[in-house]
Amino acid sequence: MQNYKVTISYDGHAFEGFQSQNRPGSRTVQDELNKVVSKMAKRPMKVVGASRTDAGVHANGQVVNFVFPFNLSERAILMGMNSQLPLDILVRKVEYAPLTFNARRSSHEKRYLYRVSTSKFVDPFKRFYTGHYFWHLDLDRINQALPDLLGEHDFASFAASGNQTATTIRRITSARLQAIPDRDELLFIFQGNAFLYNQIRIMVGVLLEIGNKTRPVHDIRRLIEVKDRQQARFTAPASGLYLDEVYYEPMD
Amino acid sequence: MQNYKVTISYDGHAFEGFQSQNRPGSRTVQDELNKVVSKMAKRPMKVVGASRTDAGVHANGQVVNFVFPFNLSERAILMGMNSQLPLDILVRKVEYAPLTFNARRSSHEKRYLYRVSTSKFVDPFKRFYTGHYFWHLDLDRINQALPDLLGEHDFASFAASGNQTATTIRRITSARLQAIPDRDELLFIFQGNAFLYNQIRIMVGVLLEIGNKTRPVHDIRRLIEVKDRQQARFTAPASGLYLDEVYYEPMD
Repeated sequence: MQNYKVTISYDGHAFEGFQSQNRPGSRTVQDELNKVVSKMAKRPMKVVGASRTDAGVHANGQVVNFVFPFNLSERAILMGMNSQLPLDILVRKVEYAPLTFNARRSSHEKRYLYRVSTSKFVDPFKRFYTGHYFWHLDLDRINQALPDLLGEHDFASFAASGNQTATTIRRITSARLQAIPDRDELLFIFQGNAFLYNQIRIMVGVLLEIGNKTRPVHDIRRLIEVKDRQQARFTAPASGLYLDEVYYEPMD
Repeated sequence: MQNYKVTISYDGHAFEGFQSQNRPGSRTVQDELNKVVSKMAKRPMKVVGASRTDAGVHANGQVVNFVFPFNLSERAILMGMNSQLPLDILVRKVEYAPLTFNARRSSHEKRYLYRVSTSKFVDPFKRFYTGHYFWHLDLDRINQALPDLLGEHDFASFAASGNQTATTIRRITSARLQAIPDRDELLFIFQGNAFLYNQIRIMVGVLLEIGNKTRPVHDIRRLIEVKDRQQARFTAPASGLYLDEVYYEPMD
């Protein structure tokens, strides 16, 4: 038996999210991985993913693990998986992991990116890969608002109604904005210990409304205070969101 | 009556090429344009395109024209088309044109780009947007070969078997290679008066084989001489090809 930590990228636009659904005809990243790993193991296998990314959400560096019945080299796992996976999923790296390693429970921080296209019309090549906001934005206002997200807070106002976690307290360690003028894009970069269902897409929606002056600059402080999901209505679309990296303690 | 010159972009991956097919269920760029323009004109309309791009081929700057029954502003045409076109086609620019202007016949030069991803595996985000070649490439050899394409030649060896044009003589005015190491990509840039069916994809195939040392550096000279399509077998995939710009004499 050998536990493998596997880092993957995927283009989320043709998937109904990461997690297996109990509906026929739904295509998920986890199902595709389970199928290939089961074939390699010659028995039914289930992979564990660090993050249950939603339908249409992408990954540069999602992490999964599985305990395999035989000991294959890291390279054999990588080549075996990539030769059988559909082209919208790519295994980037395979590492041996101790049997105690669990891609979800062992992670202590995650980084997400959110790409916003600010051009007047939707670029045909970006329609699945960015959000789109063509109203006026004052980036100074967004930069003033971003530090209000930092630290440990109750983010109940930023959780989708379907959220079922025990607590809505999360810690954000980094929240940055980068303008990419030659591509007419903004890039939001968020890092934290974990995020609620839809939290980043709701935070981006609030930040864009702050930039557009339809909310006060420090409205995030009020939203954190009121703990009311109804106050933040605009959820930025899934197409702009990327799970960029999952962080773990160094393995032995 | 007013003739309009309309510059469009499209993501070709979900189209069976530019040109209308006489097959039910086939989705083409021209059909989508005809549908929208006919609706705006309240009568059946057909647009003329500068280039019949193939299935999967993209456009940054394809040009079409149509003679419209009423005189609308350029902005009204642009807004009207973009509000009704599917998101994989975008109208970038609309200009009044003299009635003699024909997007296909009036063009005197075209520029195409070909993107090659050179990473070991296919990046999931590039699978529809680049060709892929992970064998060793000596770029100096490609740069030595590119000038052999320049000038007026009989490109019969570089025409797909379906080619039905009267002559296979074409003039190439520019053929360049640009390496983009931080994206693991090569970009070929070709400009010429016109190109044969599949010509650029066959030229890219030959150039990659020259870079990989499976062909002599100046094999293009021999291929131009022999006029035999069987000699150049590897056609680079449609996914990497972009119609970048169509050139016309300045309009009055």
